[in-house]
Amino acid sequence: MMNWYNKQTMENDVVISTRIRLARNLCDYPFASKLDPTSAREIIEKVASALTPHNFTMIDMAGVSALEAQSYVEKHVISTDFAKKSTPHALLTSEELSVATMVCEEDHIRIQCLLPGFQLDRAFENACKVDDLLDGALNIAYDEKLGYLTHCPTNLGTGIRASVMVFLPALTMTNQIASLSAQLSKIGLTIRGMYGEGSASRGAIYQISNQITLGITEEDTIKKLKEIISKIIHDEKRLCQNIYKSSEDSLTDKILRSVGTLRYARLISSEEFFSLYSDIRLGILLGIIKDISYTTLDNLLYEAMPASLILKFGDNIGKDATNELVRDRMRATYLKSIFAQK
Amino acid sequence: MMNWYNKQTMENDVVISTRIRLARNLCDYPFASKLDPTSAREIIEKVASALTPHNFTMIDMAGVSALEAQSYVEKHVISTDFAKKSTPHALLTSEELSVATMVCEEDHIRIQCLLPGFQLDRAFENACKVDDLLDGALNIAYDEKLGYLTHCPTNLGTGIRASVMVFLPALTMTNQIASLSAQLSKIGLTIRGMYGEGSASRGAIYQISNQITLGITEEDTIKKLKEIISKIIHDEKRLCQNIYKSSEDSLTDKILRSVGTLRYARLISSEEFFSLYSDIRLGILLGIIKDISYTTLDNLLYEAMPASLILKFGDNIGKDATNELVRDRMRATYLKSIFAQK
Repeated sequence: MMNWYNKQTMENDVVISTRIRLARNLCDYPFASKLDPTSAREIIEKVASALTPHNFTMIDMAGVSALEAQSYVEKHVISTDFAKKSTPHALLTSEELSVATMVCEEDHIRIQCLLPGFQLDRAFENACKVDDLLDGALNIAYDEKLGYLTHCPTNLGTGIRASVMVFLPALTMTNQIASLSAQLSKIGLTIRGMYGEGSASRGAIYQISNQITLGITEEDTIKKLKEIISKIIHDEKRLCQNIYKSSEDSLTDKILRSVGTLRYARLISSEEFFSLYSDIRLGILLGIIKDISYTTLDNLLYEAMPASLILKFGDNIGKDATNELVRDRMRATYLKSIFAQK
Repeated sequence: MMNWYNKQTMENDVVISTRIRLARNLCDYPFASKLDPTSAREIIEKVASALTPHNFTMIDMAGVSALEAQSYVEKHVISTDFAKKSTPHALLTSEELSVATMVCEEDHIRIQCLLPGFQLDRAFENACKVDDLLDGALNIAYDEKLGYLTHCPTNLGTGIRASVMVFLPALTMTNQIASLSAQLSKIGLTIRGMYGEGSASRGAIYQISNQITLGITEEDTIKKLKEIISKIIHDEKRLCQNIYKSSEDSLTDKILRSVGTLRYARLISSEEFFSLYSDIRLGILLGIIKDISYTTLDNLLYEAMPASLILKFGDNIGKDATNELVRDRMRATYLKSIFAQK
């Protein structure tokens, strides 16, 4: 399964990861909510035959356990709705392109390219490669005036959602997220918690993405997002340094205590993990922590989540898998192994 | 200066240390509160000439800085009142006997023997050796019917205060200290915080001592205290094991987190130190922590206190000595060095 995040990358001190999603639908089929199982199967077959010759792997979600599906959600490879669907749906992944394409989600096709760090151009390029493959093989619903037709009118037009996951500890500490959110919405961008719409922020992690898909090209959407994110990166870093200068001792104390907790605690809840994550990441940014890399740390956003932990370590835990204490112990043991002093 | 505590000893998992104090006064002189400086000087000279030939060191408190005096208080070698006195007063110490004798405190003479662990008999023996030396050389105020005459009537009779410093985390966690206190007072014993009368308990550390000095011999006083303490040790240990059995994970988690904090924090207040001390000591008792000894840990009850820290590390801190942040940083640095992994 695609471990898109586990790669060294540049420019990842504020931007954790980048995602481009393109929504596409096929002509001659009703939208997914009205789709019968036979038609859904047909769509899956068509998309698979367009992509599998190009080194894509097909995962029929009917053969994926609920636990595995949940671990894909934790890794941002599929949506929660997609994981829970009972009608036919499938995933087509390409390690090379870092692309996961959901078939029969809200739209017939959702091309997603996920990359670590700040890589909007490369993510868009990769998504376009998949789009071209599909466009050459299938009859994609496209209207000269409206653009790509989508299930939800908010995606109509380009069908693009460009988003970056950012780490904003200083803006969070100084309570500036609400005003940032207000500014972004004025220019058609939105800021949300780590798991998308309606999710709360944890560990000072946010997703910033475009809201508008009509009347603006894909290139301009990406260009605007790039410019704004570059400005946010600059502001956040400067603010971090200012906070550090004015409270070096207490901030260093907080960060080092979190290192101690990661190396010593026996139980770590998922909620506490995010708070420790945030302290450690800030510690790396400020140069206080030198022996932990962003990549090692960011992997944990996916690998230290409940379903992923159980898949990795829960061979014999059986019904204990639903026991929070067991999971918290598993998480602490895993974190201890990752952060063990060399 | 007497580091009476820094010695390996037996039976110290519940009893941290033992103290015997004998109050004595000289005939022909008024009690200390009515004593003029010249007479005080005379008393100091007399006591010094009785003890210095027997390997005692005389410390004239007039030559001791306020900071040093405070570090003696932290080490339980002198009382706070003694440290603050402006009229002549002196200390006569014997490393061999582990004895510190205050001259011109509330009584003319207060013989104190301080030993680590549970050593009431040895402490009493040592104190008696000093008492015999003084009795042979000086005219001690003694009444056939009342016994030793003392400044405060609560010490009249034997003038003995036998006390042990105990670590009672389980009785504290289960809120049993108040009922223990009620039981003890019925049999003429008292339980108090670490720094004696009126002081609050910190780090689950208490002092248990006799209250009664009339109508009971020294030997019976010590025998009774020994019996009660042995029972408390037994109860406390059993309760510790029971708590551990019923909450192994969360207790281990708490203890290991404290190890992490000691090894990583940049700032540790004196209040937090006591809480960490308590967790670590319980961890040693339960066998969770194996690489830290009681002696190493208990030394910190004295060495990690403000005046002792400043005397040890504060060479160039000047007016910063009164800055709490500076002291907390000093304490954290010191604790880190003590608990550094070998």
